[in-house]
Amino acid sequence: MSNIGPSINTLTGHAVDRLIADAAKLRVAVSKGERGETIIDAGKAAPGGIEAGLRIAEICLGGLGTVELAPNGPNPKWPFQIFVRSTDPVIACLASQYAGWALSHGEGKTAFFALGSGPGRALARKEPLFAELDYHDHAERATLVLESGKAPPPEIVDKVARDCGVATENVAFIFAPTQSLAGSVQVVARVLEVALHKAHESKFPLSRIVDGLASAPLSPPHPDFIQAMGRTNDAIIYGGQAHLFVTGPAEDAKALAQSLPSAGSRDYGRPFADVFKAYKGDFYSIDPMLFSPARAIVTAVDTGETFHAGQIDQALLDVSFG
Amino acid sequence: MSNIGPSINTLTGHAVDRLIADAAKLRVAVSKGERGETIIDAGKAAPGGIEAGLRIAEICLGGLGTVELAPNGPNPKWPFQIFVRSTDPVIACLASQYAGWALSHGEGKTAFFALGSGPGRALARKEPLFAELDYHDHAERATLVLESGKAPPPEIVDKVARDCGVATENVAFIFAPTQSLAGSVQVVARVLEVALHKAHESKFPLSRIVDGLASAPLSPPHPDFIQAMGRTNDAIIYGGQAHLFVTGPAEDAKALAQSLPSAGSRDYGRPFADVFKAYKGDFYSIDPMLFSPARAIVTAVDTGETFHAGQIDQALLDVSFG
Amino acid sequence: MSNIGPSINTLTGHAVDRLIADAAKLRVAVSKGERGETIIDAGKAAPGGIEAGLRIAEICLGGLGTVELAPNGPNPKWPFQIFVRSTDPVIACLASQYAGWALSHGEGKTAFFALGSGPGRALARKEPLFAELDYHDHAERATLVLESGKAPPPEIVDKVARDCGVATENVAFIFAPTQSLAGSVQVVARVLEVALHKAHESKFPLSRIVDGLASAPLSPPHPDFIQAMGRTNDAIIYGGQAHLFVTGPAEDAKALAQSLPSAGSRDYGRPFADVFKAYKGDFYSIDPMLFSPARAIVTAVDTGETFHAGQIDQALLDVSFG
Repeated sequence: MSNIGPSINTLTGHAVDRLIADAAKLRVAVSKGERGETIIDAGKAAPGGIEAGLRIAEICLGGLGTVELAPNGPNPKWPFQIFVRSTDPVIACLASQYAGWALSHGEGKTAFFALGSGPGRALARKEPLFAELDYHDHAERATLVLESGKAPPPEIVDKVARDCGVATENVAFIFAPTQSLAGSVQVVARVLEVALHKAHESKFPLSRIVDGLASAPLSPPHPDFIQAMGRTNDAIIYGGQAHLFVTGPAEDAKALAQSLPSAGSRDYGRPFADVFKAYKGDFYSIDPMLFSPARAIVTAVDTGETFHAGQIDQALLDVSFG
Repeated sequence: MSNIGPSINTLTGHAVDRLIADAAKLRVAVSKGERGETIIDAGKAAPGGIEAGLRIAEICLGGLGTVELAPNGPNPKWPFQIFVRSTDPVIACLASQYAGWALSHGEGKTAFFALGSGPGRALARKEPLFAELDYHDHAERATLVLESGKAPPPEIVDKVARDCGVATENVAFIFAPTQSLAGSVQVVARVLEVALHKAHESKFPLSRIVDGLASAPLSPPHPDFIQAMGRTNDAIIYGGQAHLFVTGPAEDAKALAQSLPSAGSRDYGRPFADVFKAYKGDFYSIDPMLFSPARAIVTAVDTGETFHAGQIDQALLDVSFG
Repeated sequence: MSNIGPSINTLTGHAVDRLIADAAKLRVAVSKGERGETIIDAGKAAPGGIEAGLRIAEICLGGLGTVELAPNGPNPKWPFQIFVRSTDPVIACLASQYAGWALSHGEGKTAFFALGSGPGRALARKEPLFAELDYHDHAERATLVLESGKAPPPEIVDKVARDCGVATENVAFIFAPTQSLAGSVQVVARVLEVALHKAHESKFPLSRIVDGLASAPLSPPHPDFIQAMGRTNDAIIYGGQAHLFVTGPAEDAKALAQSLPSAGSRDYGRPFADVFKAYKGDFYSIDPMLFSPARAIVTAVDTGETFHAGQIDQALLDVSFG
């Protein structure tokens, strides 16, 4: 039986409409592409900003979550915190927010490559992950968010529309480079998603994750892509905390809590940009277990027990954020 | 002269309409009962969740307050905080949110008992408290929130509709057990209300309370009713803080501040579930003065003085929350 | 070339309409003045409150920012924090929120004097500051916020309408004394604006300030104007923190960070009310460099470096807030 959830592309479509209506004040640039698709630049030619990043992060969650800022957190040097929560964390984070759809076209200098995030993924269902997600969307419009410095070429637009089963005019692409303010915000806002993803990697049954809250410090952007990516990852790996609420036996919740924190990774302990360089830029050599919050809290709602693991590393954040 | 305030049942009716429109994403179940009344299950057969709890808590406040989550507070082990504020705390908390309407029907195994909370109380005005509240509502629809694991029987629906002076089709009942996530949230969100209620018990003139803010940690749910109730109460009693703004002499504000904290109760000092068991489950033997925030801040706006009393007990929260 | 930004008076007009629609619950009084202008009393004859203050603070920002409350901050004694952010801090804070339009009429006991804040300033453009702000509004309605205990006389209404180029019926004035709750909130919410203003005084090019976040504790009101003004200023001067994101060289960002904190002022170190009295109430003798946040964080987005300067003085806040 399919999850009779809401249509995340329809919910998100309304959020995209509001983003477009507020484009001037959010300083994002809206245009139509060659195939009639909607293109929203939130940080390359257009300045965008933190508020645009919050909106885009909620769009990534498929309309099933909120992304807010809070003015104070555990690190007095970096007080502003991204706060993410979701009414349905599995669908919001894994069926929508996870940047799992690899979109590439061409070769050499003009090649385009970006990882697609957002609810359009749940229409296309191209990734193996969807075999395990009991969720289908049937919307007539699709939205994808790209951590990228440019809009997708027409060939990618055609492919996305085809795979999503919608007309190209009904596809919206929102892009912002990791180096931009909006890009930083939307990546750090993945602090809940990485917990969900690691739970999935650890074979924890997704249907048992019933609620989730997470926070991480807002990392300052950096003009260098590797440093920018490093900081957003460090915000999560060394400064993130996630609280998951799960059903089932307490021992499973305990094992999940112990498995979640980034400290369990062999690559834990230095800024992400350094790890990346040590592996000579080979992203896929990095231990995937590194991508997770510093600290995990897991409550077994069926027994009332709560398990805590990991801790925030303020000193490392200070090194990373410069 | 009657308070010419807004109609809290009308304001809340709009919030109920939004809850219904968002039912799928909030994972609450909406149905029609035997008498045509609206029934919303937010945590028994339907999973509900934290976000549903926030919405329901605002409904309890009669549309005159906000209930938000914040990602960090004074206890690093339990970082997520419920934050309540109201534009009119007396009406929001006492005429609406206070769970003061005892609704019971039948006997033995099929008996129904629940304490009604929410703006419907201000239409029915069955409780002695209303003699002291200069507020009348004249709405054509009524909403009640029940801390309960089941919907009310038709006889209760009839009684509520009759007492509220509305048709049964225009009554909405929202229910969630204390053991559920939504139930936990909506109970902890009473942290401001208990301060108002204790002020009233202490004979502080209600019309002098002009504004209020309060917070308490989000307590983890527990499957056992007594433990679940205990944790939500402990979140307030040992982790809650409330800031009231009052008119009148500074000495009255000082006396109010000193009277408010839970530490003034003879039953203060151990988890609420233990207190409850010590009284062999006789709720009415528990010192009513226990139901109040751990910490109080009272500002006398007419003199500019502020009085502080009480303190948060992190160690006890750690014991209670497990 | 003019900034093709949104019309801040149009955006704000919608917020004023919502304030009027919610007048009963926000406890503000709405009336029509002699010239048909809209008058909103948020703290003199009408009680108003904290929530009204948050709405008015957002109105001051011209619809380009958010003003929220958070339940916890660095000072456990004064936990509630005002949190301000803006999608376009230069326009929001300097073209709109800055209280730069001196409005005076008459002499002696019946004289009216108030500093006008809000988006109407950007229609009138009477202040020299506007020569440096590349922003023009062409709205048909105007809004001004007055830190004042009374509505403006007809002569001021006529002048404002004339200078703004709108009909008097299309002007809204919102007023609240500094001694009121709404007044306190809207003044403390200037914590980001004072950082922008000091950056401007320090000749930092405004076009290089691309984003901003700031917070300050909610100060308790005081019935005496000087004490009330003192506390709102102290909330910012001793308890405020601002994070600006700027383009350009790192050394400029570093110099900006070092120039921003209030500690650089010769008048830093005692409650503002004492400073004011020491200068015998001559506001213009006070070092203008005092009006700034206690702590500054400046990120140079073009180099990725962040500079920190200043610190919060909890002890002084405790003295000031009483």
